[in-house]
Amino acid sequence: MKTYNNILIAQGGGPTNVINQSLVGIIINEKKKNSEIYGSLNGVNGIINNRFINLNKISLNELSLLKNTPGAALGSTRDKPDHNYCEEIIKVLIKKRINKFYYIGGNDSSDSLRIISDFAKSQNKKIQCIHVPKTIDNDLVLNDHTPGFGSAAKYVAQLFSGINFDVSSLPGVYVGVVMGRHAGFLTAASSLLKKKESDGPHRIFIPESSFKLDEFLESIKKTYSKYGKCIVAVSEGIQDNKNILFTEKIKSKNEFDAHGNIQLSGSGILGDYLADQIKNKLKISRVRADTLGYPQRCFLGSASEVDQKEAFQIGLNSVNFSYKDSQSFSIGIKERKTFDKNYKVQFVKNPLSEIAGKTKRMNPKFYNKKDFQVTKTFKNYCLPLIGKKIPNTISIK
Amino acid sequence: MKTYNNILIAQGGGPTNVINQSLVGIIINEKKKNSEIYGSLNGVNGIINNRFINLNKISLNELSLLKNTPGAALGSTRDKPDHNYCEEIIKVLIKKRINKFYYIGGNDSSDSLRIISDFAKSQNKKIQCIHVPKTIDNDLVLNDHTPGFGSAAKYVAQLFSGINFDVSSLPGVYVGVVMGRHAGFLTAASSLLKKKESDGPHRIFIPESSFKLDEFLESIKKTYSKYGKCIVAVSEGIQDNKNILFTEKIKSKNEFDAHGNIQLSGSGILGDYLADQIKNKLKISRVRADTLGYPQRCFLGSASEVDQKEAFQIGLNSVNFSYKDSQSFSIGIKERKTFDKNYKVQFVKNPLSEIAGKTKRMNPKFYNKKDFQVTKTFKNYCLPLIGKKIPNTISIK
Repeated sequence: MKTYNNILIAQGGGPTNVINQSLVGIIINEKKKNSEIYGSLNGVNGIINNRFINLNKISLNELSLLKNTPGAALGSTRDKPDHNYCEEIIKVLIKKRINKFYYIGGNDSSDSLRIISDFAKSQNKKIQCIHVPKTIDNDLVLNDHTPGFGSAAKYVAQLFSGINFDVSSLPGVYVGVVMGRHAGFLTAASSLLKKKESDGPHRIFIPESSFKLDEFLESIKKTYSKYGKCIVAVSEGIQDNKNILFTEKIKSKNEFDAHGNIQLSGSGILGDYLADQIKNKLKISRVRADTLGYPQRCFLGSASEVDQKEAFQIGLNSVNFSYKDSQSFSIGIKERKTFDKNYKVQFVKNPLSEIAGKTKRMNPKFYNKKDFQVTKTFKNYCLPLIGKKIPNTISIK
Repeated sequence: MKTYNNILIAQGGGPTNVINQSLVGIIINEKKKNSEIYGSLNGVNGIINNRFINLNKISLNELSLLKNTPGAALGSTRDKPDHNYCEEIIKVLIKKRINKFYYIGGNDSSDSLRIISDFAKSQNKKIQCIHVPKTIDNDLVLNDHTPGFGSAAKYVAQLFSGINFDVSSLPGVYVGVVMGRHAGFLTAASSLLKKKESDGPHRIFIPESSFKLDEFLESIKKTYSKYGKCIVAVSEGIQDNKNILFTEKIKSKNEFDAHGNIQLSGSGILGDYLADQIKNKLKISRVRADTLGYPQRCFLGSASEVDQKEAFQIGLNSVNFSYKDSQSFSIGIKERKTFDKNYKVQFVKNPLSEIAGKTKRMNPKFYNKKDFQVTKTFKNYCLPLIGKKIPNTISIK
């Protein structure tokens, strides 16, 4: 049986609504082992800049508040360590006698951790590196889904359900641009509270299926002539068959920068452009576009209770796993073999090298390319993740 | 004691999260009077196009689902009746023996109703016209606040609280553009869950206070150098001292239309432009802008329980008032004389002519022009309206 004295926790990448649940899970279980628990501020950046706080002193009451607080409580970073950076990290960890490092993060953070772990090994330093997943993109391989996704999916589903009733009140076309550069999971979640064929979202466009503007317009035209309204969910990562982002194409086509006055690198460009195309080419007058933006990952008070629980448990379990041997690993949620609503979460250990820097994309069974819609299989997969605390609704018209 | 046989309900203007609560309130109390209850689809437009549904048959269970459903269940309209339109309305109402008309709506709907009521009177037709307020803008005169506002305010407050933790994780500048063309109430609500000075939103810009870009940038610069981050809430209706919308100025300055490719009438332009100015003039690299858009008025599942209750009660009470005499009126929520957190809602009758087409703006006591912040008085006024079902949070850094 190993014992640790000093352990370190950090958070990296884009925060989520439940990333602090995992932090609290780790703290609670490491406290039971009488560990000295450090947190580094702003991920790996806090290590090389010697910005640490002691996490033992946080009271149980504070920990329970922390669980409900969105964002990364320790701060986050986009830093990706190179050789020198790693050397610096190892130096500091050794100086502080830290021999276990939990990094809560997504693809990039797992890759950072793999680099650090490999580097430590090459130097014969015993530092156990543990990756605890989080990402609203849900794009980690070997994971059924990732903590953070369920809450973001719930937010997107609630938002599109509300939009469905709003657009039914004052008909027109609505385009909602959803986060997700490489994977369409979150955009697909827009459909989760859709009840009938005539409800929105009527069309869904994801990065996994190559985007053609004429098909996009044609599909909207069809729905609009059938229902007098059309609600569309579009992933910010839609791209052509050469993997060129549609947003990049718009930018270069319009050469805003060359005109000098404005650099449209902000978030509105894709939605605004698509709305404009619908107005001009389909001659529909009431067209609105919203870019859902940062609230998708941090909106206070609508986290999925299932996601909260799993994020907490994955923190707890990462500690339990770490005491079984001293290997580095990435904890994960075991993939389901079949998709039914009664799934039960199971935690597994994955090798860091098999997670790091890889991107999972939507299962082809989840999306119907012909109709630009998600399948029932996707709904069976995704519905359990958003929990049940969502009001039921009705249409009376 | 009057009796009515046939009564009509319609909904107008931009929908809200609780507009159906008022609809259900009216239905429940009119059912007790054994009225024949019609709904016209898409507001006054449904009257002249003879699109009615019978509302007596909706079951109690369906009514309870309807209360939680965002959007206008009967559909809405932006139509504003002129003389001929009114003539048509009166004709149809008389033909259907309708002698009472409830119109749930905002400024414009109350104005439509005033026109119809005046026209009926001039024709010696006895039709009681009752305006039941709703608007997320909170800009009806003689009303302490309006049903629909509390839920929208809660959404905006939750969103900015989440953003506060998100931006604290990965510092930078965040600009959130909030609905409200003439009144800053909803933008001001962004501050409601702010706990300490260093929390966002740090600066708030409302239509009531004339907007100067250099002051905007200067205020952000100050906050950013103090805290390494700055969160800003900007009303879509910010305008200069000649009441020219800032968004209009941007559009004409950049002459996007003249360049042919894109008409930037979409929602992202103001946020994108401001983010661009901050990046270029203040040399801050991480700047993000979100335009909050339609979810503000329809997001499913985060309605304020206080707002829901009041919207329901205002429906019930409009029926009770209507049976006291046959005058047309606008029901309202009595204005508080002082602002403390323990307010008690009181319903009053206001003359249609005193509500119709008028716009209430923020009380000068609610806003501190020097610091671009709301006052404690505003928080006392507004906090009770968003209810208490919001998780508590904590910062540990």
